[in-house]
Amino acid sequence: MAIIKMKNDTSNSKDVTTAGKVITCKAAVAWGPGQPLVVEEILVDPPQKMEVRIKIHFTSVCHTDLGAWQGKNEAQRVYPRILGHEASGVVESVGEGVEDMKVGDHVVPIFNGECGDCVFCKSKSSNLCKKFRVDPLKSVMTNDGKTRFWTKQGEPIYHFLNTSTFSEYTVVDSACVVKIDPNALLKTMTLLSCGVSTGLGAAWNTANVHAGSTVAVFGLGAVGLAAVEGARSRGASRIIGIDINSEKLARAETMGVTDIINPLELKKPVHQEIREISDGGVDFSFECAGNLDVLREAFLSTHEGWGLTVLLGIHSSPKTLPLHPMELFTGRRIIGSVFGDFKGKTQLPQFAKQCMHGAVKLDEFITHELPFSEINQAFQLLMDGKSLRCVLHL
Amino acid sequence: MAIIKMKNDTSNSKDVTTAGKVITCKAAVAWGPGQPLVVEEILVDPPQKMEVRIKIHFTSVCHTDLGAWQGKNEAQRVYPRILGHEASGVVESVGEGVEDMKVGDHVVPIFNGECGDCVFCKSKSSNLCKKFRVDPLKSVMTNDGKTRFWTKQGEPIYHFLNTSTFSEYTVVDSACVVKIDPNALLKTMTLLSCGVSTGLGAAWNTANVHAGSTVAVFGLGAVGLAAVEGARSRGASRIIGIDINSEKLARAETMGVTDIINPLELKKPVHQEIREISDGGVDFSFECAGNLDVLREAFLSTHEGWGLTVLLGIHSSPKTLPLHPMELFTGRRIIGSVFGDFKGKTQLPQFAKQCMHGAVKLDEFITHELPFSEINQAFQLLMDGKSLRCVLHL
Repeated sequence: MAIIKMKNDTSNSKDVTTAGKVITCKAAVAWGPGQPLVVEEILVDPPQKMEVRIKIHFTSVCHTDLGAWQGKNEAQRVYPRILGHEASGVVESVGEGVEDMKVGDHVVPIFNGECGDCVFCKSKSSNLCKKFRVDPLKSVMTNDGKTRFWTKQGEPIYHFLNTSTFSEYTVVDSACVVKIDPNALLKTMTLLSCGVSTGLGAAWNTANVHAGSTVAVFGLGAVGLAAVEGARSRGASRIIGIDINSEKLARAETMGVTDIINPLELKKPVHQEIREISDGGVDFSFECAGNLDVLREAFLSTHEGWGLTVLLGIHSSPKTLPLHPMELFTGRRIIGSVFGDFKGKTQLPQFAKQCMHGAVKLDEFITHELPFSEINQAFQLLMDGKSLRCVLHL
Repeated sequence: MAIIKMKNDTSNSKDVTTAGKVITCKAAVAWGPGQPLVVEEILVDPPQKMEVRIKIHFTSVCHTDLGAWQGKNEAQRVYPRILGHEASGVVESVGEGVEDMKVGDHVVPIFNGECGDCVFCKSKSSNLCKKFRVDPLKSVMTNDGKTRFWTKQGEPIYHFLNTSTFSEYTVVDSACVVKIDPNALLKTMTLLSCGVSTGLGAAWNTANVHAGSTVAVFGLGAVGLAAVEGARSRGASRIIGIDINSEKLARAETMGVTDIINPLELKKPVHQEIREISDGGVDFSFECAGNLDVLREAFLSTHEGWGLTVLLGIHSSPKTLPLHPMELFTGRRIIGSVFGDFKGKTQLPQFAKQCMHGAVKLDEFITHELPFSEINQAFQLLMDGKSLRCVLHL
């Protein structure tokens, strides 16, 4: 198979000469837990049946990338690997059978795919595709159980979250690629891949926040602020933001939060304060911190009878829910939300249009921009709580 | 205040001569944890403002009575006390301000009241009345914090669950009394006070079981079988009953259960068996056993993506939910249901009519009948797992 070295020309996205051929390009490779990513040349196979090869234009770093990079979960320690799952780009070529996308289409990869055929995709009640749902242990393509990435020495490089976007080119199952309006700004569309869709969808789809709702958001990173934006855009009357990082609280106030609480500066439990200022508790709380104590506070902050806590944070502790069964008899409910309950391929194109028309403010989520080569700096910014999203330009 | 000794004449329910006067009648008094109830003469005060005095015609024993009688929860050890919360009867007199009921009305007391004025009663989302919700620690009337029951020596006898139906006469807040069609058979209407409404309402209101749904019911006592009946009457295609009591399993098969599972005779986890026979899991599971291991099995028995577990059992253990936060990301949900999410005063009259017209089979729940004087035998039948409901005739 001929190997083509890509010229440093990002504008020529319809370069048909690469179709069907192995591409040599740059990727940020994770070689071990916590080791700085190495931006190096790799080989990318052509897409196979029902796969799409995408030229990534922009990608950003999310906490899930951090967790996988740090190798917190031993079972996830698969190296070398290309991380990354928030991105936007242009279709370079498509594999056999792909009919809903063609070369040159603007696309966003999604880690939570939609095959359209399984019992979940055919149900109105779930966005958990049987074949392409979130699986942190999956590191190869579904088609043949092999990788499409190789080192220049011919060793396999593994995939991550159905996407692997820290690469100039990636191969993704077509079920995990969403075609968007070509007029949408690719840079901001990156945010739809994960964080913004997850938080905003949790408010829109999972909780169905409505005009006049009261809301509390625990953890004001990108996902939490997206939940805030979802609540704001639906007309919530009160949005209480909770974080122990005062910088995040200050930023949240500029993004729709009406009240802020720093638990470190409070002399009583957070849920008590929230119940006092919201006439018995909020209608909806969002747990975006991945912490069990926070989860319990979020649960107790909602109003008895109808309060709903939406779980968004990743809980790596083996500990179980800190709730007593009888506490469910108060009418408070708790529910998990994956990818904001969006059915990616079906619903994201319309969501992208809503963003284009200003229904949702995306720009404020991009706090930093760096060249791809400085990806380790982007990781550091997120770890330090400095950035919401640092977008990398490829 | 004149004390009137009631004649042994249960037909004359409109004896106006007793209104406004203290009544002497028989009640089954609990004098200490686990001590046999003593059927003895007591004094019953007239109803105060917004209260109703009811001549009880039938009452039955529920597991909640057992728990309170045994004094499992130390805080609930209040003696002497009149237990009982499932009953039916006729209004003997009403207190000041009661306008929706009059002497002679056929009524059912409800432990989960509906004041009509509070934030919960005014919400469509909750049946947890602020003033008259379930409170196992409450032992006096809301009006004045006192009891309406007295020993013949003038000592107070305490109330239970807003109802205290193990008495020929009881005084109940009007918010906790439901007027029913005078043509409904009082004996079966007793069941609407608690067990049947709780289980059936969980299927109808909480879960909204629909035609073709698949269902698993864990624990086949009265509440569990009422959930079965709720699922059957809604046209569920498959109703799996789980219990370790083979007699209960056999009875369940005559009441609509399509498959039975005795975990003691199974060589794999119950949820595994249920997933295998129900194409990945049931749509709805009902936990009616009050056991944490059972709760986990019930949760895991539902289908990913949309499975809903409805919690009905009372969990007296201080242990928390045996579920990991990440398990909520499977799309499985768990929710508590109190009194089947019926708003008692608003919805029970219509429910009673549906029962009269045969939409629900009530008769099969009455497995035993005894005179009121043999109430301790009724307790024993329930403890031994012999009875669903033993109706006592007063």
